[in-house]
Amino acid sequence: MIRLKARKINVRSGGPDIVILNERIAKREVIKPMDRIRIIARGGSVVAIVNLSPEIPEDEIWLYKEIWEKINVPDGEEVLITIEEKPKAIEYIKKKLEGKELSEEEVFEIVSSINGNTLSEVESMAFVVACYTYGLSIEETYYLTKAIAETGEKLELNVRPIADKHCIGGVPNNRTTMIIVPILAAAGVYIPKTSSRAITTPAGTADTMEVLAPVDLSIEEMKEVVLKTKGCIVWGGGTNLASADDKLIRLRRPLSLDPMGMVLASVMAKKYAVGATHVLIDIPVGKRAKVRSFRDAYELKSRFERLGRMLDMKTEVIITDGSQPIGKGIGPALEARDVLWILTNDERGPFDLREKAESMAGILLEMIGKVERGEGIMLAKEIINSGKAYQKFKEIVEAQGGDPNIKPEDLSIGEYRYDFLSPRNGMIAEIDVRRISKIARYAGAPMDKGAGLYLYKKVGDFVKAGEKILTIFAESESKLDYAIKILEEKEPVEII
Amino acid sequence: MIRLKARKINVRSGGPDIVILNERIAKREVIKPMDRIRIIARGGSVVAIVNLSPEIPEDEIWLYKEIWEKINVPDGEEVLITIEEKPKAIEYIKKKLEGKELSEEEVFEIVSSINGNTLSEVESMAFVVACYTYGLSIEETYYLTKAIAETGEKLELNVRPIADKHCIGGVPNNRTTMIIVPILAAAGVYIPKTSSRAITTPAGTADTMEVLAPVDLSIEEMKEVVLKTKGCIVWGGGTNLASADDKLIRLRRPLSLDPMGMVLASVMAKKYAVGATHVLIDIPVGKRAKVRSFRDAYELKSRFERLGRMLDMKTEVIITDGSQPIGKGIGPALEARDVLWILTNDERGPFDLREKAESMAGILLEMIGKVERGEGIMLAKEIINSGKAYQKFKEIVEAQGGDPNIKPEDLSIGEYRYDFLSPRNGMIAEIDVRRISKIARYAGAPMDKGAGLYLYKKVGDFVKAGEKILTIFAESESKLDYAIKILEEKEPVEII
Repeated sequence: MIRLKARKINVRSGGPDIVILNERIAKREVIKPMDRIRIIARGGSVVAIVNLSPEIPEDEIWLYKEIWEKINVPDGEEVLITIEEKPKAIEYIKKKLEGKELSEEEVFEIVSSINGNTLSEVESMAFVVACYTYGLSIEETYYLTKAIAETGEKLELNVRPIADKHCIGGVPNNRTTMIIVPILAAAGVYIPKTSSRAITTPAGTADTMEVLAPVDLSIEEMKEVVLKTKGCIVWGGGTNLASADDKLIRLRRPLSLDPMGMVLASVMAKKYAVGATHVLIDIPVGKRAKVRSFRDAYELKSRFERLGRMLDMKTEVIITDGSQPIGKGIGPALEARDVLWILTNDERGPFDLREKAESMAGILLEMIGKVERGEGIMLAKEIINSGKAYQKFKEIVEAQGGDPNIKPEDLSIGEYRYDFLSPRNGMIAEIDVRRISKIARYAGAPMDKGAGLYLYKKVGDFVKAGEKILTIFAESESKLDYAIKILEEKEPVEII
Repeated sequence: MIRLKARKINVRSGGPDIVILNERIAKREVIKPMDRIRIIARGGSVVAIVNLSPEIPEDEIWLYKEIWEKINVPDGEEVLITIEEKPKAIEYIKKKLEGKELSEEEVFEIVSSINGNTLSEVESMAFVVACYTYGLSIEETYYLTKAIAETGEKLELNVRPIADKHCIGGVPNNRTTMIIVPILAAAGVYIPKTSSRAITTPAGTADTMEVLAPVDLSIEEMKEVVLKTKGCIVWGGGTNLASADDKLIRLRRPLSLDPMGMVLASVMAKKYAVGATHVLIDIPVGKRAKVRSFRDAYELKSRFERLGRMLDMKTEVIITDGSQPIGKGIGPALEARDVLWILTNDERGPFDLREKAESMAGILLEMIGKVERGEGIMLAKEIINSGKAYQKFKEIVEAQGGDPNIKPEDLSIGEYRYDFLSPRNGMIAEIDVRRISKIARYAGAPMDKGAGLYLYKKVGDFVKAGEKILTIFAESESKLDYAIKILEEKEPVEII
């Protein structure tokens, strides 16, 4: 046990809680870099990971910002340092590394240590790798899901039923959420939906909804919106729901380690954390989508259903066509326009997106028991046709802080445009969704809300030479030029 | 490809090469945190790992100190940024994570990426974990050894034979190196020895040698000493020999992941890097030593011998008694005094240490062919008895920059002393080496060179009530008190 003077430094690790000690003092105390010490101050106590430096005065300890945000230490105050034992989580990670199965308590301890930053990134990575090499049993997956949900914040609505949906992703547009949420809410079903922003695509649901209303809500704000309107469409990253999952995803990314159990837990923890009772999962299959074979899709489907049962959530999984974009606009404003056209029964609303959203909403309505099996899609259609879905959508937009009266024609679409015309007569045989995404990204999406492209033709449509296949929209000439260059590199459609 | 203004920041990651980009720009360019980019400046090009911040101007890129030490970029100069593909090493780590065996090229690529900091710690950790869970074949161990040696600096003496030795460690004192090196060098054999500092023990060979001469030599200085005197005893951490190993050790430590192949490669790479042709490995076995069973010791022995053959180094392994300290002094100066007493044929030189060093030196002399099998120990004894070993030792001390005329009685031993007396008549049945180490550490070793303890009795010796068993030495009264407290907690010897 030693006494040192605390010095606050304005540095943030972004991850673990770090302190810096003088090398000589650390050596005397047999403290090595990456060891853990406990800092006991009058304002509280915290465990931190040690870095060493020869340049720090021997009687000082330097605290990263994360630490002095946690405990109240006036600069220069004397604090007590004790050496902390290795956290239990490390023992359990080693157990998994030896191929043994973990108990519920062990998984919880690991996840809460990762979430609370008492494990370093390197230590946490050992857990990710262990899950990758040995896999996770369905029981471990269940424990992991619960632990991720329970160590983060939770949305406590205290109502039932609560619907939720998730799409495995990788398909441009596919903005079913923005149609399903108002249909369900209009039917009287709670549906507190969190969505992600684009990572590699031209828009995520959160980016698209943001064209119409703020999406960066806290859990309290989200709760208020849902209790008022029954639905919401907010950005998941703005809440602390299932926050451990964000850390696991960050570790998985560099080596693309996606152990199936972690992928399942990642999705279901977010549903569990909002208290969902009925969950519909959409797995699009396509050679450029995230899931590329029906075999993989069925394997995922059966695991999702089993995990759902264990979590006491009614879970259904549909496998859908992921071979081409769903909808016609690609990019935040262009996709929002498609959604508004559908909700306002405008004939320009893309039929494929409308039909997919209606059938998914129908399944959820059936699962919940609002209608008999087979009648859900009729009710969903009726809710859109009658204008009730649009009315509900406007309520949600307003509750989130947006302008409910915004019209499709009010949306600002990029002024710099380029038409890509068919070089010949024929039929669209294939649309390369990766190239479509790349063109829209280079045009400025998702950062430039009005950027992207619009598809006049889909797979199976006939085109004549000189007929428009798509238009690129950009907010600056240079970005338009970039996008055109990408388009000219390789055509994004195959015409036969 | 984008152009940004370089800003040099005075921050060092201590590991990977880091740059910070504006979040918005990164998003537009589809660059995510931990991605790699190449920075092309007029002064050169370098690959770095990306961190993001919303607070950095959109047209700037901030460079950590490691980067502007590598490439010459004036502050504010425009640099070109391109997105770098994932390094090949990541693909190979994933291959190992799938349980497949790696080729020589693949292992080399991984080790050189770890050594060159083109892999992040999290990515490198995945390799360590993969080696732990799947193990390393003897071929992979061989590739790993060579890769560690070849990616670091090497000592190029261009002579043969070159002797080397290694002890698996965990036994207090046991300073055979400081006796073997002068014997071998006096017999005309090159023996460029690098040693470690104490990590958890009261002294490493480097700490002990440092009482007599500087040990923090560069490779060039080390070479000069060896070419002049045939031997040296320097600190391995001061050179860049086998530097990748230091990084691997740092990753292995938090979870105590010691895959046998990595332990073997770690030892042998350092021998390979100094060009050793004849290597003797000492594996002490004892219930408190690093190796605790003869079974493990024999397993290690056979792997060391096999690896040695593959590396074209004649390698012998001896299994020795690790149940109690070898020698009588514990702590840098006290151990150095034992060594000087032995080399000067003083009767106070501890017999067990002398005998162990003589027999190890003898084996090396036999391996090299200086004498027939069975006659090595005689030659070793003769070299000590004649004073040739001491003469050579003084030459080495002088060449390293120490005072060759220092006498055992000149060594400064802690003035604060405490005698631990036997509470009763009996025989020493056991010495707890961990407690002995702890007492010496609390007394101030290895930072206080004169601190430690001296053992008058060893296992098998008879003691009378009131007779001295050991004396603690400290350089301050408070440290002496600490050490006495540890001693009184639990007696470090068992008397029957």
